[in-house]
Amino acid sequence: MAPVSAGPEIERLIQLLARLPGLGPRSARRAALFLIKKREALMAPLAAALQTALEKVEVCRTCGNIDTQNPCTICTDPRRDASAIVVVADVADLWALERAHAINARFHVLGGTLSPLDGIGPDDLAIDGLVKRAHDPAVKEVILALNATVDGQSTAHYITDLLHDREIKVTRLAHGVPVGGELDYLDEGTLAAAMRSRTPF
Amino acid sequence: MAPVSAGPEIERLIQLLARLPGLGPRSARRAALFLIKKREALMAPLAAALQTALEKVEVCRTCGNIDTQNPCTICTDPRRDASAIVVVADVADLWALERAHAINARFHVLGGTLSPLDGIGPDDLAIDGLVKRAHDPAVKEVILALNATVDGQSTAHYITDLLHDREIKVTRLAHGVPVGGELDYLDEGTLAAAMRSRTPF
Repeated sequence: MAPVSAGPEIERLIQLLARLPGLGPRSARRAALFLIKKREALMAPLAAALQTALEKVEVCRTCGNIDTQNPCTICTDPRRDASAIVVVADVADLWALERAHAINARFHVLGGTLSPLDGIGPDDLAIDGLVKRAHDPAVKEVILALNATVDGQSTAHYITDLLHDREIKVTRLAHGVPVGGELDYLDEGTLAAAMRSRTPF
Repeated sequence: MAPVSAGPEIERLIQLLARLPGLGPRSARRAALFLIKKREALMAPLAAALQTALEKVEVCRTCGNIDTQNPCTICTDPRRDASAIVVVADVADLWALERAHAINARFHVLGGTLSPLDGIGPDDLAIDGLVKRAHDPAVKEVILALNATVDGQSTAHYITDLLHDREIKVTRLAHGVPVGGELDYLDEGTLAAAMRSRTPF
């Protein structure tokens, strides 16, 4: 990235912004200029918010969610159904399910999916912690909310095998037509799965 | 934007990131998670860089550029040709010309272009300062590097009129075919301008 003749401090800010997902060198320059123009309204609050997050954000020791309290808000919320654990690969997936108000249960963040090609094995994921939590007699169901990819599904199979001897229901998200989706644009695998799992109308 | 069940501090960070140009709510969430994961490698340096920029970045009192010194690095650089002032609407345009190594001269940042519809008149731009700088007998040329839009061109005309009585050359950027551009995709105005300004081969 060419220097911007604006002092090393601004260049460094641009370089750091360019490392954020979704921002390239050009949009990082735009973002830096925007921040400098909105000094009081945006740059100062953002600097403070980053500093606060640095000091306060922790990984929940129970579920692997990130929060400013530990255990996290979800794990300590008494209104959550403690009988179901929703297993997700990543905090982003947890957030997505929460935004959808998909379920009022607890979560378990694996920190990724099994991926032999990338050298990610069971020991790299928070699978031990999940098995320990599933020991709790209050837990009746483990819901595998993993991506419908090869890695996601092989992780789901691996976890299902581990929990096989428990008196516990292991479920996964339904496959089917996305709400608002058009059949013509769907892949054959999804259409076949949606047909197999058809429901009374 | 739906809350993310991760504490008000993380939500605030996401909301501030979402206000950056090029980031929407979804990419702001991704960026926040990325920052939290790259705590030491990215979040801490970015917080520090923003704080440094907050403390040090100023608008150059001569040309309107932004820099951590005032007057800016360009205005104080003795190797720059002091006989030409390149007039740009915005610091982003200055940076673009600098990246292109387009010219080794000084700049003048107007802070926008005349735009009667948006209520932006001559008093809202750094035009007075430009006229004062053009008084300097060392200045022989004012180069109008303004956008080839209606607002940019009317600003160029306005400045040309103001400098009319001076012994000074007022020039503007050439119109023509962008380097690497295909004729078939160019608008008629550009093609006509490129034909009028054709050069010996």
